[in-house]
Amino acid sequence: MEKVGEIWREGRRVGKEDPRRIVHAFKVGLALAFVSSFYYYQPLYDNFGVNAMWAVMTVVVVFEFSVGATLGKGINRAVATLVAGGLGVGAHHLASLSGPTIEPILLAIFVFVQAALSTFVRFFPRVKARYDYGILIFILTFSLISVSGFREDEILDLAHKRLSTVIMGGVSCVLISIFICPVWAGQDLHSLLAFNFDTLSHFLQEFGEEYFEATDDGDVKEVEKRRRNLQRYKIVLNSKSNEEALANFAKWEPRHGQFRFRHPWKQYLAVAALLRQCAYRIDALNSYINSDFQIPTDVKKKLEEPLRRMSSESGKSMKEASISLKKMRKSSSYDIHVDHVLNSQSACKDLTTLLKSGILNDVEPLHMIALTTTVSLLIDIVNLTEKVSESVHELASAARFKNKKKSTVSSEKSDSVSTVRAMPIKSQDDHVVTILCDDDMSHTVDQSRGESSVDSCHHVAIEIDDDDSVHEKHEDGEMHEHTSCVSCGQTNASDVLDSDNKRTSYN
Amino acid sequence: MEKVGEIWREGRRVGKEDPRRIVHAFKVGLALAFVSSFYYYQPLYDNFGVNAMWAVMTVVVVFEFSVGATLGKGINRAVATLVAGGLGVGAHHLASLSGPTIEPILLAIFVFVQAALSTFVRFFPRVKARYDYGILIFILTFSLISVSGFREDEILDLAHKRLSTVIMGGVSCVLISIFICPVWAGQDLHSLLAFNFDTLSHFLQEFGEEYFEATDDGDVKEVEKRRRNLQRYKIVLNSKSNEEALANFAKWEPRHGQFRFRHPWKQYLAVAALLRQCAYRIDALNSYINSDFQIPTDVKKKLEEPLRRMSSESGKSMKEASISLKKMRKSSSYDIHVDHVLNSQSACKDLTTLLKSGILNDVEPLHMIALTTTVSLLIDIVNLTEKVSESVHELASAARFKNKKKSTVSSEKSDSVSTVRAMPIKSQDDHVVTILCDDDMSHTVDQSRGESSVDSCHHVAIEIDDDDSVHEKHEDGEMHEHTSCVSCGQTNASDVLDSDNKRTSYN
Repeated sequence: MEKVGEIWREGRRVGKEDPRRIVHAFKVGLALAFVSSFYYYQPLYDNFGVNAMWAVMTVVVVFEFSVGATLGKGINRAVATLVAGGLGVGAHHLASLSGPTIEPILLAIFVFVQAALSTFVRFFPRVKARYDYGILIFILTFSLISVSGFREDEILDLAHKRLSTVIMGGVSCVLISIFICPVWAGQDLHSLLAFNFDTLSHFLQEFGEEYFEATDDGDVKEVEKRRRNLQRYKIVLNSKSNEEALANFAKWEPRHGQFRFRHPWKQYLAVAALLRQCAYRIDALNSYINSDFQIPTDVKKKLEEPLRRMSSESGKSMKEASISLKKMRKSSSYDIHVDHVLNSQSACKDLTTLLKSGILNDVEPLHMIALTTTVSLLIDIVNLTEKVSESVHELASAARFKNKKKSTVSSEKSDSVSTVRAMPIKSQDDHVVTILCDDDMSHTVDQSRGESSVDSCHHVAIEIDDDDSVHEKHEDGEMHEHTSCVSCGQTNASDVLDSDNKRTSYN
Repeated sequence: MEKVGEIWREGRRVGKEDPRRIVHAFKVGLALAFVSSFYYYQPLYDNFGVNAMWAVMTVVVVFEFSVGATLGKGINRAVATLVAGGLGVGAHHLASLSGPTIEPILLAIFVFVQAALSTFVRFFPRVKARYDYGILIFILTFSLISVSGFREDEILDLAHKRLSTVIMGGVSCVLISIFICPVWAGQDLHSLLAFNFDTLSHFLQEFGEEYFEATDDGDVKEVEKRRRNLQRYKIVLNSKSNEEALANFAKWEPRHGQFRFRHPWKQYLAVAALLRQCAYRIDALNSYINSDFQIPTDVKKKLEEPLRRMSSESGKSMKEASISLKKMRKSSSYDIHVDHVLNSQSACKDLTTLLKSGILNDVEPLHMIALTTTVSLLIDIVNLTEKVSESVHELASAARFKNKKKSTVSSEKSDSVSTVRAMPIKSQDDHVVTILCDDDMSHTVDQSRGESSVDSCHHVAIEIDDDDSVHEKHEDGEMHEHTSCVSCGQTNASDVLDSDNKRTSYN
């Protein structure tokens, strides 16, 4: 009984986390009930006989959560069945010419050779990424056709029936997945990227508060909650496999919404890689908030102003990128430039002046190390933020985002067609991100010091594994200034990225 | 023709990278040729008829690269077929009681309900991790049995035949995968962890050299090569999904070599998570080597001695952990303690003294920031290294590693039974790690300043994606001292790890 209650709660949680899962389950049930009618409906059964089971099998195996994955598998399966069917018939014909003794030996050799070759080809990275399932079906169909032909003479008829049932099953899946509450992998990837921007932006905007003030806060529960909130950035650290899977699926998808067939999904991965670099720095930064070794507040206060500004400004620039993604509009480069020059230069100059004035001369060496590391990591993050912005700009060009209208806040109110709607992400790992947005997300919420305001138009539910669930609403903001810190000439991790980009570019 | 040459080269590369892939391809071919003999061999065919195709299908779908994955899929498939077969027969019986008009409607409802429910259950994280394939087969078998029963009366016979052919196919796969050149996922996970230790150790041991001397090195190609070598740590950053997949497979595996059935695979993931934390810090550190903004050498030199010692000592401690893993022997805690006290305290004290002496007082603020960040990240890494050592120690206890003999260098020569043998890792992502070791890996190689000596007993081939391949031999060392830096009381990322461990502990 206890167990049943547990399963029930788990089910509720899984469904609540992403209601599209419930819809998906219904869609699969529908598709299966439909294709199994091939058995009940006499004319169809007379035509296909037991081969109707291939339609059932196709639906079970091909129907995936997103349209891209379903289409990919469906096309893989249909093409592989066709090719393998043809070759299987050929192999069978060839073997049958050789007489009854040699025939089984020859067939066994054919099966062995094609299975070994195809299995090996599955290890090729390019093949594995997109055609793994096709090769599997190729091995399966070739073996079944060539071997079963040993008994049946109507092998051509068999191959034909099998192919038609597979195609009927596949087409049912694809149609149902496209026309009933479709889940687009491309849309999900797009939202995941925007969500990752939000998460990092949240950390950076809250960082100042947490770093400079948290120590004298009395309410332990409150602090706990805020910190857990802050640590949401951790899902960005391990988002790579998820993003790559989504990008692979998205490539199969036809035009939908504002996403073209050849939408630049590769560029999404490039932006995501940069964002992950940022997250690594943030992870290091985070350890300085939670460390047992605390720098005295008066020491910290010496650099408070520029540090707060740097972190919140780069947080805002991330926010801007996120909004630009969500709206699929370019931030006009002029705006970025002005904000950038104004804020970054002043924050950096302030910092340099402060440091040059010998403000840290009387500070304990170990305190100084800890403090300057924070400084340095922040400078690093600010620089990376600039790269991220550039990368988003490239993405915006490649994806042909619309240009932003001049006076955004007033004019966008009228534009109520949203680009981002209900979009959860089904992940390979076990964390799951659900992002729900209303149609109109142009409310202007001002959060000058990173204050978290709950806004009805943007709901983010995060869940990291089953025993550590966090559900929360996430704020949405609009049009912040954007800054960076190039003038410092400080170190950054640019070189690192080249190899990472290379790693993601094989697709 | 060009294309064929390219495919050929790619094939050679894939095969060379991990020769076990070629063996695997042959094993699959063999298994398929074997089960397809069910068609040729008259007595078997008389018994099973077309149901023999389920054996072929099972082999194609179940045979995976590692024993664990094959066993997991095989058991999933057999159990799911059994349960779904039983329920399918029940559903069919129930429906047939209701008369010919209602029967198809009732059957369609059954199929719909079980497909929707099962599909939803597949979203449960625990189920997804281990039983995803089982549920898929459950849906498939239930639908086929209950529906096809609509036509055939010998449904029990059908279910029985299907189950026996599935079991025969599954057993063939499992036997072939265990007895012909087995690939153990557990062994692979073990080696991957040791390899990750080696990679980070390599970085840390080379870091001093690179940071303090590389700038005045003339040979661009040489520098390039060294840096690329150094950046191998990057595969550790994204190793999470790979490790989790291997751990999931490993749980299915029976006792093999020194791995018990209930080997503490979870602890491997915990160590790996800590190691990843280290890699994030190293990534930040790495950006200071490659940065355009260079600190003048004379400034760097001021802290050279303690920094070099800290990085190389923690590198050596990683190396020790890697060796302890490879040999599956505990490092005796006494040794660790002595080394630890001696080296860490002295390096940290030296550093503190240096800093307190005001050695950085006349340094440019921005130079100081960059330098102290390096210091701080290194202290962070040293502290993490200590945690990693503890975690490895826990792993050694949980996995019941043998205790190290007193005088290691001389006595281990006689112990020529190695625990680590040929072990490549098949990854979900596209990077691949191949680790090949000889039986006897007890040579003592001394590499005091992290010099890379090519040693026949240990070969590591790394490949990151298809267009960025690096093949190289990797050194193997023995019995280095081990150090850490607790006495500094410096900040570290401990708190961060709790949540990460939680994330990996759901399995």
